[in-house]
Amino acid sequence: MNNFLNMLTPKEPKFFPILKELADVILVASDLMVEFMKTNDHESAIEYYKKIKEQEKRGDALSHKIFDELNLTFITPFDREDIHLLATRLDDVTDRINSCAKRIVLYNPKSMPQGALELAMTLKEAAVAIDKAVDELNVLRKSSKKIKQYCVELHDLEHQADDIYEHFLINLFEKEDDVKELIRHKEIMSELEKATDVAELVGKIIKTIIVKYA
Amino acid sequence: MNNFLNMLTPKEPKFFPILKELADVILVASDLMVEFMKTNDHESAIEYYKKIKEQEKRGDALSHKIFDELNLTFITPFDREDIHLLATRLDDVTDRINSCAKRIVLYNPKSMPQGALELAMTLKEAAVAIDKAVDELNVLRKSSKKIKQYCVELHDLEHQADDIYEHFLINLFEKEDDVKELIRHKEIMSELEKATDVAELVGKIIKTIIVKYA
Amino acid sequence: MNNFLNMLTPKEPKFFPILKELADVILVASDLMVEFMKTNDHESAIEYYKKIKEQEKRGDALSHKIFDELNLTFITPFDREDIHLLATRLDDVTDRINSCAKRIVLYNPKSMPQGALELAMTLKEAAVAIDKAVDELNVLRKSSKKIKQYCVELHDLEHQADDIYEHFLINLFEKEDDVKELIRHKEIMSELEKATDVAELVGKIIKTIIVKYA
Repeated sequence: MNNFLNMLTPKEPKFFPILKELADVILVASDLMVEFMKTNDHESAIEYYKKIKEQEKRGDALSHKIFDELNLTFITPFDREDIHLLATRLDDVTDRINSCAKRIVLYNPKSMPQGALELAMTLKEAAVAIDKAVDELNVLRKSSKKIKQYCVELHDLEHQADDIYEHFLINLFEKEDDVKELIRHKEIMSELEKATDVAELVGKIIKTIIVKYA
Repeated sequence: MNNFLNMLTPKEPKFFPILKELADVILVASDLMVEFMKTNDHESAIEYYKKIKEQEKRGDALSHKIFDELNLTFITPFDREDIHLLATRLDDVTDRINSCAKRIVLYNPKSMPQGALELAMTLKEAAVAIDKAVDELNVLRKSSKKIKQYCVELHDLEHQADDIYEHFLINLFEKEDDVKELIRHKEIMSELEKATDVAELVGKIIKTIIVKYA
Repeated sequence: MNNFLNMLTPKEPKFFPILKELADVILVASDLMVEFMKTNDHESAIEYYKKIKEQEKRGDALSHKIFDELNLTFITPFDREDIHLLATRLDDVTDRINSCAKRIVLYNPKSMPQGALELAMTLKEAAVAIDKAVDELNVLRKSSKKIKQYCVELHDLEHQADDIYEHFLINLFEKEDDVKELIRHKEIMSELEKATDVAELVGKIIKTIIVKYA
């Protein structure tokens, strides 16, 4: 009946520490992104991109590890699918952060987009909520109420990110007359906004898991 | 053998009315979009966006309802997956319409893109075909021929939408020299074109369902 | 235990020849794309697009055929899913190539983007690796080492494509002052880059299949 929970408990502990580490990768990467947004020269940009890229590689390695474990462990397809999807989405958040960092280096904008720091800070808050929610997964029956609260937070943060992004976009098309700079800013911010979208998706998956197993 | 059909018939009627209402949401939203495309001031734009946004929320609520019912109902994973996918794609059509409406408000173009009304009208025709196809799902054995015809229609309408979009794009890059306005128009129209793509996807899912269950 | 292999062997040979032909479609389409990139007039562009479009239709027909066979054949959902996913991704590569060709015709750039030929050649190398890997699938136990090598190649080629695309993008935003032309080039190249991404995805799916069945 409750294989999912078993897999996260001491008897079958291998998935839980990996999921926690995947959440930690997001935390570190979003922290770096906040600092990144405060810089304004190409050299720093390259430095921050390198550091975020390291986290992306760390996330990739963890994903591969979890997929290998899933293939080796005898569990129901149902549970397998849930863990697979959760790990994939966690990794997606880091991928989006990395992709945003890469775009800053490639497009090399004259300045950071307006609202970029604010958006990165919202993403960081989402990373904290994800980390806390994943941290309770191995006691999800006991913590289901708490975890649901983190999922609500992720939903609210996504709305907040939407507001910031929309405000940025309206302002950009009204004020920015250098169209090349306009495109640069749009490409950078849209990727960061997608990172907050995927963070909310993580919340939705965790909510589904609670409905099924708690 | 035929759980899917059972679920849509009187004994298990809960999914069918929700699917029908999801189709109705698309119908209302695409109707609004046609009217929206005839306007040309920011105040009306905000009004139409609000109305379409309401439909998007209605669609979201219906999706959540169907997912909750799916989790509570004992059905085979096979059937579960088909209903889940159909509901998801129906909701995607509304999401794309909503996203297009939002872009008109955010980008605030000087005029509506050329071909926008025509594209919205094609989408509305697709919405009518979806509505009719979903309406026959609970008698799919009897109506399989009819339903297939609606799926063919959805395929043809998607091709028609492609033609409109391509013509728009060629014209846009040839004639529009205000690059900010060019970007605005491209962003708005590409979202509307994606709505017709997803409408065709709905047709493909329904066709698969017929092959399996009719 | 090993239905997947059975399906590809003489007793159940229907899927294997279709998969091989799907790989051949990619080969032909990427060949055409390399030649396409050497041209520089609208008439040739239309001609090459037509030829690539034919391959896309051929791929579509093959996909439909494989999905129909899957629905008619009694196999485990597990195997069904793997074949379905592999066929879908193979077809996706062709779709991306076709979409890139279409964009060249629609956007009608003044010149081909810098790096376009190089990127197309990288894609063609990936097509060759895919073709070779698929060719060994029916003897995957014997050839697992060889197949893994092709998957490594696909991974490396994707990195090479990334480098080309990034170099193109940096250069584009530095040098191209005609913003309409900048957008045209960006739209064309991003689609070609996505084709190499999907080619790598094919490699990942094949690798998963080897882990499961070899």
